[in-house]
Amino acid sequence: MTGIFWIVPVAAMFALGFARYFFVNMKKADEGNGAMVAIATSVREGAMAYLKQQYRVVLITFLLIGLLLAFFAYVVKLQNRWVPLGFITAGFCSALAGFLGMRTATTASSRTAQAAIHSLNAGLKIAFRSGAVMGLVVVGLALLDYSFWYLILNMFIDLAKPSAKILAVTSTMLTFAMGTSLQALFARVGGGIFTKAADVGADLVGKVETGIPEDDIRNPATIADNVGDNVGDVAGMGADLYESYAGSILATAALGAVAFRHMGAATQLHAVLAPVLICALGVLASIAGIFFVKTEEKSSSLDLLRSLARGINISSVIVCVGSYLVLRLLNIPNFTGIWGSVMVGLLIGLFIGKATEYFTSQAYKPTKKIAEYADTGAATVIIAGFGNGMISTLLPVIAVTVGMICSYHLAIRGNGCNSTMGLYGVAISAVGMLSTLAITLATDAYGPIADNAGGNAEMSKLGEHVRARTDALDALGNTTAATGKGFAIGSAALTALALIASYVEGIKCAMLSAGGKYITVNGMDIALKKATMSNILHAYDVNLLNPKVLIGMFIGSMLTFLFCGLTINAVGRAASKMVVEVRRQFREISGIMSGEATPDYARCVTIATSAAQREMLLPAIIAIVSPILVGFIFGIPGVMGLLGGALSSGFVLAIFLSNAGGAWDNAKKYIEAGLHGGKNSEAHRATIVGDTVGDPFKDTAGPSLNILIKLMTIISVVTVGVAVSYSLF
Amino acid sequence: MTGIFWIVPVAAMFALGFARYFFVNMKKADEGNGAMVAIATSVREGAMAYLKQQYRVVLITFLLIGLLLAFFAYVVKLQNRWVPLGFITAGFCSALAGFLGMRTATTASSRTAQAAIHSLNAGLKIAFRSGAVMGLVVVGLALLDYSFWYLILNMFIDLAKPSAKILAVTSTMLTFAMGTSLQALFARVGGGIFTKAADVGADLVGKVETGIPEDDIRNPATIADNVGDNVGDVAGMGADLYESYAGSILATAALGAVAFRHMGAATQLHAVLAPVLICALGVLASIAGIFFVKTEEKSSSLDLLRSLARGINISSVIVCVGSYLVLRLLNIPNFTGIWGSVMVGLLIGLFIGKATEYFTSQAYKPTKKIAEYADTGAATVIIAGFGNGMISTLLPVIAVTVGMICSYHLAIRGNGCNSTMGLYGVAISAVGMLSTLAITLATDAYGPIADNAGGNAEMSKLGEHVRARTDALDALGNTTAATGKGFAIGSAALTALALIASYVEGIKCAMLSAGGKYITVNGMDIALKKATMSNILHAYDVNLLNPKVLIGMFIGSMLTFLFCGLTINAVGRAASKMVVEVRRQFREISGIMSGEATPDYARCVTIATSAAQREMLLPAIIAIVSPILVGFIFGIPGVMGLLGGALSSGFVLAIFLSNAGGAWDNAKKYIEAGLHGGKNSEAHRATIVGDTVGDPFKDTAGPSLNILIKLMTIISVVTVGVAVSYSLF
Repeated sequence: MTGIFWIVPVAAMFALGFARYFFVNMKKADEGNGAMVAIATSVREGAMAYLKQQYRVVLITFLLIGLLLAFFAYVVKLQNRWVPLGFITAGFCSALAGFLGMRTATTASSRTAQAAIHSLNAGLKIAFRSGAVMGLVVVGLALLDYSFWYLILNMFIDLAKPSAKILAVTSTMLTFAMGTSLQALFARVGGGIFTKAADVGADLVGKVETGIPEDDIRNPATIADNVGDNVGDVAGMGADLYESYAGSILATAALGAVAFRHMGAATQLHAVLAPVLICALGVLASIAGIFFVKTEEKSSSLDLLRSLARGINISSVIVCVGSYLVLRLLNIPNFTGIWGSVMVGLLIGLFIGKATEYFTSQAYKPTKKIAEYADTGAATVIIAGFGNGMISTLLPVIAVTVGMICSYHLAIRGNGCNSTMGLYGVAISAVGMLSTLAITLATDAYGPIADNAGGNAEMSKLGEHVRARTDALDALGNTTAATGKGFAIGSAALTALALIASYVEGIKCAMLSAGGKYITVNGMDIALKKATMSNILHAYDVNLLNPKVLIGMFIGSMLTFLFCGLTINAVGRAASKMVVEVRRQFREISGIMSGEATPDYARCVTIATSAAQREMLLPAIIAIVSPILVGFIFGIPGVMGLLGGALSSGFVLAIFLSNAGGAWDNAKKYIEAGLHGGKNSEAHRATIVGDTVGDPFKDTAGPSLNILIKLMTIISVVTVGVAVSYSLF
Repeated sequence: MTGIFWIVPVAAMFALGFARYFFVNMKKADEGNGAMVAIATSVREGAMAYLKQQYRVVLITFLLIGLLLAFFAYVVKLQNRWVPLGFITAGFCSALAGFLGMRTATTASSRTAQAAIHSLNAGLKIAFRSGAVMGLVVVGLALLDYSFWYLILNMFIDLAKPSAKILAVTSTMLTFAMGTSLQALFARVGGGIFTKAADVGADLVGKVETGIPEDDIRNPATIADNVGDNVGDVAGMGADLYESYAGSILATAALGAVAFRHMGAATQLHAVLAPVLICALGVLASIAGIFFVKTEEKSSSLDLLRSLARGINISSVIVCVGSYLVLRLLNIPNFTGIWGSVMVGLLIGLFIGKATEYFTSQAYKPTKKIAEYADTGAATVIIAGFGNGMISTLLPVIAVTVGMICSYHLAIRGNGCNSTMGLYGVAISAVGMLSTLAITLATDAYGPIADNAGGNAEMSKLGEHVRARTDALDALGNTTAATGKGFAIGSAALTALALIASYVEGIKCAMLSAGGKYITVNGMDIALKKATMSNILHAYDVNLLNPKVLIGMFIGSMLTFLFCGLTINAVGRAASKMVVEVRRQFREISGIMSGEATPDYARCVTIATSAAQREMLLPAIIAIVSPILVGFIFGIPGVMGLLGGALSSGFVLAIFLSNAGGAWDNAKKYIEAGLHGGKNSEAHRATIVGDTVGDPFKDTAGPSLNILIKLMTIISVVTVGVAVSYSLF
């Protein structure tokens, strides 16, 4: 262990310290008048009630799976003995980050609205720095958990040969990622169902049936809708990116340990530490960037966007320069090439963000075209959005494939034809993309805070100029939400790729620990210690004409559709329940419409919460069980096919869903701005249908796919022993 | 060559003879009164105008590509010298089949309506037997083309060693499939755009804006709509299945030549002839089945369905028994196992049909649920249909994967672990599925004839009881259309699989003809003549961790979405043009609405035709160029990834699109039958939106994917030399 490692826990503490600083400062701000406090309290209580229920389910699941892992680790001894513990702490840290972020976001909304009474900048500062709390606790806790286990495992794993020890530490830690992945599953899928059940339900009765505007306190589902924004874009998005962040660091470290194992223990260790050090650097860069986000009073929406972009750009530049120095300092062979891979990752993130913007923003042709089709009704709006969303998959796929080939070849340049080294390059490009997560996630979590602030101002009937300011802040949030989704999908794809790459090394470990010295499959006989990745794959016949691989690919592609279908239907069912409840309240509680009686907000929150928990079960079970089952039946080739199929088609499907939804949303906003007849025209009604259809696409099904592709991969990594030892065919 | 081969051309002549017999008989029937003849004539002229324009584009494309192939064959000598000729005849036969089928279908519609004046059975007989003409000319011409080239090549290819000669003949003939594939591309994509541009355009102005019913002669686009039914479901579907039929026979023969080459020339030849002999048997079985399709006057729709099913079942049973005898007679090693593979194919087709029915028929829960959601508006109808369609991918994927593993293992049983033999099993299961094509395609082509007959009866104002009969015939057509689509997708997937399997053998041939004796890739050195499939794939590193394979998979998945997006947008654009034209006619030609003036039907047909031709170009170029480009850049691993990714995600996407569209269509019909408020209720309007959205899904984008996955594969097979000799990476 080298001293430089200590930068990691220090950076983690820095992140948590600044998170606390931002939180305390925000708490000091004025939380507004009685009405504002009451609304904010309802939202906060709803959010906490949701989290409480969610974490109860998560706790039970973690205990069950933890016990299962413990059984395999301590009784059957088929599993590494550290896995049950690491699995639990990883899940706990991710859950804690979600809790802190949600707490902050729901505390900040009324304060943002109140600050907006004074100035736009004051509002932006409160909202953005409260969003930054989420970003900072995510990276802080992730790096802290990493440091903790890194130190513990180095202390307890007792292997004389340094290179073997590093291999053992990294491959053990990799499996811990399952904890973050499982927590993300519940946060993303449950959160996605909650948020859109509330949103669609509120809209269907409120806007469509009774004709009251959005964020009207007379609508019983409006608080649930506001809670949902936090549940989806703070807790859900946070857990999703927590998983990508931790997963990409761990996978890169595991690959680094393998790729550089023949170059001496020092080099190997440096390759292992490189990703986490780049992330530590990224934390500091992000904190610097956060302080640069501010604005003038007379800002246009473009200025606001620029002020966020300034923060992100500054962080990115620091990481660019800094990571070169870090890699150079670590003196990794071909450090320039590997630095190139890191840069490629940053560029992919940037490019996907731009492509997403082009296909979803009303400033560009595709979305304007969709709005045009509103003249011929809802059907043509849907058709156009659908076609547009499908076409929008082209650019991100080009970005990821070109990025993959570049980062792969940059990393092997000068290192000869070592495919593991190439995959290390691909993995570290994911790290590069995610290194400034603290600030990019801040812009995501900022969205619901601004949105809720707007809702709060509307519901508590603040003045026109305050509404104008919160509207400006909210509009910014909508833009960051769309690009944030593209970023989340891109990083999920790269992380999944990195995890798949480390899977093959997992095969080797599983065979070694099973006491084997040779791979003897299909009549081939390779000494395990000398087995290259290519040899192992050949021995297992993991080529595209092996029917098991093809079957795995078919199943993988199908699962992405099935998973989406289940979550979309879940939203439909939960939203109908919400509709029934809202109608009931309007009917039974007299005086709601005249404002004399208060609706029962909590009941709507409860309905969304329990629907989310119930509807989540089947998709969750499918995601967890299918890789194990495929491994059990079709072995390694089946699992590889499954992961490849799910990754390639899941990535494309997720982009399609997210961009189609985003474009419909903005086509509606475009018409609301006065074009094609403006608000309440026939065209507007047509785009409302599009927007409602897009809701579960972009906020439930699409984001859930990020989780699916990562979770299936990490579960395959953890249960590789089953596929190696017990496959039926 | 053995004498038994002559059964094939004889069966082909039988098929063509019966086609002629059915056509002549139909022509003798009464074509109805003046109004009926006038309408039928308009439709026929429109259809012929479309075909003329389409075939002009096809001709130019074929000449261009033929010249290119000729250049490579005769000047550069990089291509087999027979390919340009075989390519042309294959395309010609497929186009001829489309022409004859269309001619028959458009001649039969008014006669079906006229026959329905007398009895239901008379109507059914005319419509079905006219549909059978399409089925019979497809299989007849395909087998005739096969026989012709088989005889020619055996005469001209001059190789002393029988086994080498058989290899050369089959691998040469395989490349001819590109002709059918290219013709199918134009027929399916162009036809799909035409039919839905006309349909959606007619509905948007007719039903939605002016409130006149479907098939009203006052609607200028109504003739185009009727033409479109033929263009899509007769010509398009026919070309699609022509391709699958020819492709699966050729691929199975090519794989058989390789798999059995060490078992003596006689056995090898028998394995090569087995698929085409099973198909010849299937032709005779289908003709027998066709004669069993008849009905009683008082038939319910279920009875009608049963009478079709009886025909298909009888043919299937004959093929079941007959193919066992054929394989036994040929004395192929493990003939029972291979017969099992054939049976598996038949079962897959059956199962996918049933699954499609469950997810799209209003008799079952999923579609009823969608209709229920109509109570809360169009948005929830779309969401529910979307979710339902995605979930519906589960069963077909299970059918294909289970079928694949079964047919693979049945074929290698007793033959040791020979993977080529397993793939021969998979390929011959596709042949089994398609062997009764003459009668299954008859049920597809029957649909538009019955539909047009209904339209004809409506427009020429025939009596109530005639309408009731044509409605019954039409309803049957709707059911067969949905299951027919499932069948087409399933057979396309299996055919593509068979083609991919034969791709690797193509690699070997390309290397041999390039003068190489060894595969020397990545430092490996395998003597080519002894190279097994697994070795070649290993030498090329075609495993799932090779970034080129992964990149190929990403691109393959993306292309399926891009292709769909382009065709869906094309329908949107073309439909708007139609809307503009229909509005213009209503405005400028006074007296249309009162029935005093005739609209300019031909103008609408021209608009749909030229839009189809123009919009087809970009998707066609993408489908043709991308496999060549990927091969040129990323070589064999890239192409394999591309094909795998496109096949797995294209299959799932196609099923989703087809079932979502079918379910929306039937949810509308369910409500029209009087539920949830019945016709003209709010709920009905909501399902009309669903139906309109589903139109391009199920009739344009979905079916086009069948072509995409087959076309990309066959182009890869034909251009394998490029990928072998010139790849950049």
